[in-house]
Amino acid sequence: MALIVQKYGGTSVGTIERIAAVAERVQRTRRAGHEVIVVVSAMAGETDRLLGLARQINEQPNGRELDVLLSTGEQVSIALMAMMLESRACPARSYTGSQVHILTDSAHTKARILDIDGRRIRRDLEGGFVVVVAGFQGVDEHGNITTLGRGGSDTTAVALAAALSAGECQIYTDVDGVYSTDPRIVPQARKLDTVTYEEMLEMASLGAKVLQIRSVEFAQKYNVRLRVLSSFDEGEGTLITSEDEDMEEVVISGVTLNRNEAKLTILGVPDRPGIASGILGPVADADIEVDMIVQNVGADGTTDFTFTVNRTDYKAALDLLQRVCAGMGARAVEGDDRIAKISLVGVGMRSHAGIAAKMFRALADEGINIRMISTSEIKVSVVVDEKYGELAVRTLHSAFALDQAPAKS
Amino acid sequence: MALIVQKYGGTSVGTIERIAAVAERVQRTRRAGHEVIVVVSAMAGETDRLLGLARQINEQPNGRELDVLLSTGEQVSIALMAMMLESRACPARSYTGSQVHILTDSAHTKARILDIDGRRIRRDLEGGFVVVVAGFQGVDEHGNITTLGRGGSDTTAVALAAALSAGECQIYTDVDGVYSTDPRIVPQARKLDTVTYEEMLEMASLGAKVLQIRSVEFAQKYNVRLRVLSSFDEGEGTLITSEDEDMEEVVISGVTLNRNEAKLTILGVPDRPGIASGILGPVADADIEVDMIVQNVGADGTTDFTFTVNRTDYKAALDLLQRVCAGMGARAVEGDDRIAKISLVGVGMRSHAGIAAKMFRALADEGINIRMISTSEIKVSVVVDEKYGELAVRTLHSAFALDQAPAKS
Repeated sequence: MALIVQKYGGTSVGTIERIAAVAERVQRTRRAGHEVIVVVSAMAGETDRLLGLARQINEQPNGRELDVLLSTGEQVSIALMAMMLESRACPARSYTGSQVHILTDSAHTKARILDIDGRRIRRDLEGGFVVVVAGFQGVDEHGNITTLGRGGSDTTAVALAAALSAGECQIYTDVDGVYSTDPRIVPQARKLDTVTYEEMLEMASLGAKVLQIRSVEFAQKYNVRLRVLSSFDEGEGTLITSEDEDMEEVVISGVTLNRNEAKLTILGVPDRPGIASGILGPVADADIEVDMIVQNVGADGTTDFTFTVNRTDYKAALDLLQRVCAGMGARAVEGDDRIAKISLVGVGMRSHAGIAAKMFRALADEGINIRMISTSEIKVSVVVDEKYGELAVRTLHSAFALDQAPAKS
Repeated sequence: MALIVQKYGGTSVGTIERIAAVAERVQRTRRAGHEVIVVVSAMAGETDRLLGLARQINEQPNGRELDVLLSTGEQVSIALMAMMLESRACPARSYTGSQVHILTDSAHTKARILDIDGRRIRRDLEGGFVVVVAGFQGVDEHGNITTLGRGGSDTTAVALAAALSAGECQIYTDVDGVYSTDPRIVPQARKLDTVTYEEMLEMASLGAKVLQIRSVEFAQKYNVRLRVLSSFDEGEGTLITSEDEDMEEVVISGVTLNRNEAKLTILGVPDRPGIASGILGPVADADIEVDMIVQNVGADGTTDFTFTVNRTDYKAALDLLQRVCAGMGARAVEGDDRIAKISLVGVGMRSHAGIAAKMFRALADEGINIRMISTSEIKVSVVVDEKYGELAVRTLHSAFALDQAPAKS
């Protein structure tokens, strides 16, 4: 017997019929001899409906009150879910974030979980209840309602799994697992049986939006076994865990595509200390997030400095750079918002030389010019012209045989 | 400077525009130098929407979970109201029932308020905030969310006014006060400037549904000045208070009509101790509420016993009585569900003999036969055939000159 935390998203609890299907799955898990904690999101569309009401009042509504408002979405879901279980003769009790003391900091609309008091939940589990907890929400030390930001229900589930030493945290969603790449681009994309926390973090941040990234960090920190499965189909999904677990040893797990970035370059910056912060300081001050950063030392005492930002911030960043550039004696500013970033991710990369070389050759063979390169321990990212994005993904997926059974290391 | 509690019902907060109008009124009260606590109900239609979801799961949903569900309605309202005030530069903070410890018993869906911890509210008021509190809801000693039942927001407002020694508790609704009778029946019906708690209790229970009856009991118990006003018009409304206050001294305040009752009679019951409980015991056990009870001693050692019930319970009560009647050797059971109850209410009645006689004569002059009579200290009620109901009300309203300036005692 194990304790299982199951998290169901907004689509999975979007109608009374779907709530009944979730109840059926919970009861099946119970019949298999497990204790169950269910974490639910707001019914699909509800958060947007509430946000719409708030925005009729103010485009930037008061954060404390927005959290009071939005947290009702999950509260409706927990009540309906517990009601459904009860009416199917499965004892259940619902709890809001504040009722089970999901203590967070006071950063309204994007709070972070600090602590969970698991005693009440533990007592109910021992009493034979399924415990249904509202995702996405908590309470600060002053008793104010807080929310964790979009996707925060995943984090709630992982935090509960950690606090109560659950055997597994299962995230039910509308896809049946994590894929080697986007199946809409590469039909041969393969569902991965396992993936490491680190790989998942690299992939999530790069656009494979299956799980909220913070929940993966949390799972890694507290070593929570995390599984992504479909609410609508059967299947084992994808297990996200640490490398120590007995898992298939693959070199490359996946290839991701991100078309939401734009790139900016300052040319001919005098090459002296403080340049990077001189450029990026004003960008950060303007609340523009930067992703890749590349700097090459030039021969003539100047350097070119390139970075990428969200495409929505492109215009603002370009305007800002024109001013910064003038102040530091740089030659020119140029930018391009028609780019795509392709990344190859895999923990096996660490011990395998030549991955990057093989990647660059495969792209060159297709005539795809690389505009920018950046690497980490388990990732190689390249920027190419946007029009080559999908071709690049298909090329690499095939070059590294990601559609086939895992390559053993 | 006084502390004013203002309660706004579902219609008053039914749209963002109406919430803005409420905010305007709250700010006007503040500009007049008062501190304000706002109590709000769920937006019109919201409670029914939530109940509809619950009933798709189960016609009799789990009470604990129903309270978790329904309490979200008011939580949405407090958030929007506080947001609206904040965005109009009026500092405001919202609180759920559990956040300000509106402690209730654990009778889910019909809980009673036991205590309120006013410290947090007091601190916010001193800090210059308008405090917005969710009506209708509380929390039991175990931290479970409870609700007070329909109309419970009035009780929340009065309880807060009592706990914080407010100068006045204002109930904003869609009528502009308490009337001498239903203006739909008697166009000359007069709005009362003041009315006593006792009169209001008699009138509320008899069908003048302006205020939740429990809130009036609460106001009387803690001597809270209660005022009913319109959300949509200006005006002083009706002040409900104790007799000691300097108020117009009227003999009769109002006449009410209740068409929702049915009457049952057991004829020829052996006249011995225990008869009343022998008849009413089984009725109470069947959860049928009884209103008027009349018993006359007959000449032949038997008696006739008559009582009224809600018309919806008529059939069930009649079936039950047939069985009870057989067991106690009564002669027959008869009933009538086409009746109307007319009541004359007024504290002045206590010191004025002849009110009942004048009432009976006025009805007789119109040829209205009285089928049943029951009196209390400040009320005389008669039952007549349903078809005479409205005529009886008009007759009495005119006979006691209720459309004119108050008759001095």
